[in-house]
Amino acid sequence: MNLPKNVRIVEVGPRDGLQNERNPLPTAVKIEFVNALTRAGFRDIEVSSFVRADKIPQLADASEVFAKIERRPGVRYWALVPNEKGFEAAQSAGVGHIAVFTAATDGFSKANVGVGMEESIQRLSPVLSRARAAGLPVRGYVSTVFGCPYEGKVDPQAGPRVARRLLDMGCEEISLGDTIGVAVPADIHRVLDQTAAAQIPFAQIALHLHDTRGTALANVLAGLERGIAIFDSSAGGLGGCPFAPGATGNLATEDLLYFLQGMGIETGISFDETARASAGIASLLGHPLPSRARAAWASTQNSAVRW
Amino acid sequence: MNLPKNVRIVEVGPRDGLQNERNPLPTAVKIEFVNALTRAGFRDIEVSSFVRADKIPQLADASEVFAKIERRPGVRYWALVPNEKGFEAAQSAGVGHIAVFTAATDGFSKANVGVGMEESIQRLSPVLSRARAAGLPVRGYVSTVFGCPYEGKVDPQAGPRVARRLLDMGCEEISLGDTIGVAVPADIHRVLDQTAAAQIPFAQIALHLHDTRGTALANVLAGLERGIAIFDSSAGGLGGCPFAPGATGNLATEDLLYFLQGMGIETGISFDETARASAGIASLLGHPLPSRARAAWASTQNSAVRW
Repeated sequence: MNLPKNVRIVEVGPRDGLQNERNPLPTAVKIEFVNALTRAGFRDIEVSSFVRADKIPQLADASEVFAKIERRPGVRYWALVPNEKGFEAAQSAGVGHIAVFTAATDGFSKANVGVGMEESIQRLSPVLSRARAAGLPVRGYVSTVFGCPYEGKVDPQAGPRVARRLLDMGCEEISLGDTIGVAVPADIHRVLDQTAAAQIPFAQIALHLHDTRGTALANVLAGLERGIAIFDSSAGGLGGCPFAPGATGNLATEDLLYFLQGMGIETGISFDETARASAGIASLLGHPLPSRARAAWASTQNSAVRW
Repeated sequence: MNLPKNVRIVEVGPRDGLQNERNPLPTAVKIEFVNALTRAGFRDIEVSSFVRADKIPQLADASEVFAKIERRPGVRYWALVPNEKGFEAAQSAGVGHIAVFTAATDGFSKANVGVGMEESIQRLSPVLSRARAAGLPVRGYVSTVFGCPYEGKVDPQAGPRVARRLLDMGCEEISLGDTIGVAVPADIHRVLDQTAAAQIPFAQIALHLHDTRGTALANVLAGLERGIAIFDSSAGGLGGCPFAPGATGNLATEDLLYFLQGMGIETGISFDETARASAGIASLLGHPLPSRARAAWASTQNSAVRW
């Protein structure tokens, strides 16, 4: 198997995960969560989001979290910003790495941000200009690349087209999202075919997979086989998507780590420390963490044979 | 992608699934479960096991279940038998298709059947002779091919060596089991390399995967890429393995069906009818069914967009 030897994992649990958990966590717990992830070896952590507190109260403490986390040199602490106001708040909080988002379908875009895809992309333009002027790297998320809860199957050209525009606007990397977890490996190949056709180097592409139907790691394998070497995941499998009916489950970081380690692919991240990082918040969520590898790890902690 | 166009699914929920559920189900419910699976289009259903009732009380009603299920022509209704006594009971119950089992490690064999691997294989010899004499096809299971809860990592030659012997003894097909769900695709390739080296045609090999760490469908993909076209799975994700600490979760049939349908691979089986078949027992188990595709299906039953 001719797969990448190293994979970069973008840990999205503190933002994408916690945003979609019903119970908001105390700020101190979030700070310790991010610090524990730093200690586990992540080089990319999406820490929070500068959005309206009335829209996403779970992340209303973004400034305080950014002020108090211990930042390790070489680690990129990302913040999601929806607009210029969010960008300004992020800058005031000393955020050095900006993430923006849009969708591959009008239906999802309207449900998520109230306007269609085209207007949503245009709204990002001033944010990207200002980030460029400030010398801040910007990561772009494209949601519903593989399927949309409002429109069904999505044209495999749609996501790459949006990705191409975001790159042209100044994003350094695009994360293609299977927001409702409907993709199978054949879909990954179709979208990556169109990504290549849009003249996008795969080094600038991340896959953001959900395990809603159990297909996430099969899709990771398909991505690896094409040379994709950046994957988003969420510690413990935190979160889902509040705007997508039936969407539960970001790909769990522990599942991804177990898989990549077994495949002999380096990440620089400790499975055990990641599992311990999510342990700190597990008891506060009101439900078990969905990660399967994490549950298996927990149940074999006292067994003679470790995996 | 050059994958098989058709896959045969061996539905093991009524035996391997229910055997590992704490709450025994009423016999009438099991019969209806098997009948619903027949209607869903399965051609291979592992119905029950003729083992000592004091060891596995969940399946003590095997004879009655076999007597009362509606058998559709062309469908193979399998029974697991551990020894000659079990074989005789199965014959009396009119069973036409026999499954036997052993393991790829001594540690698991001893914990499971009280004797080491070698003695376990020899014990199968009279069963296989009698099945051959009676003209009954025999399927052989090899457990712990990829990892053992007592011995850890398993030599990739171990499972194929046992498989080779079972074929020579008269089995028509061997199911290689990842009993505790530790395999990743690289392991699948290693074992299939050794399977080929043992002169075993892949047409005689099934993969029996567990989703304990979320890797099952990635392993299915690896198997498909090598030409494997028979997979065991359990409706709803019923069952696990009572002798393997931390082992939860046979690969769920719904997850496998969702995956294969998305890949354009034919199975002849209805996803919806399978999901409805497991619905009949879900409320009696005392826990949610682990299938992710099934949960997503259930949550989108009333949504405008169906998957």
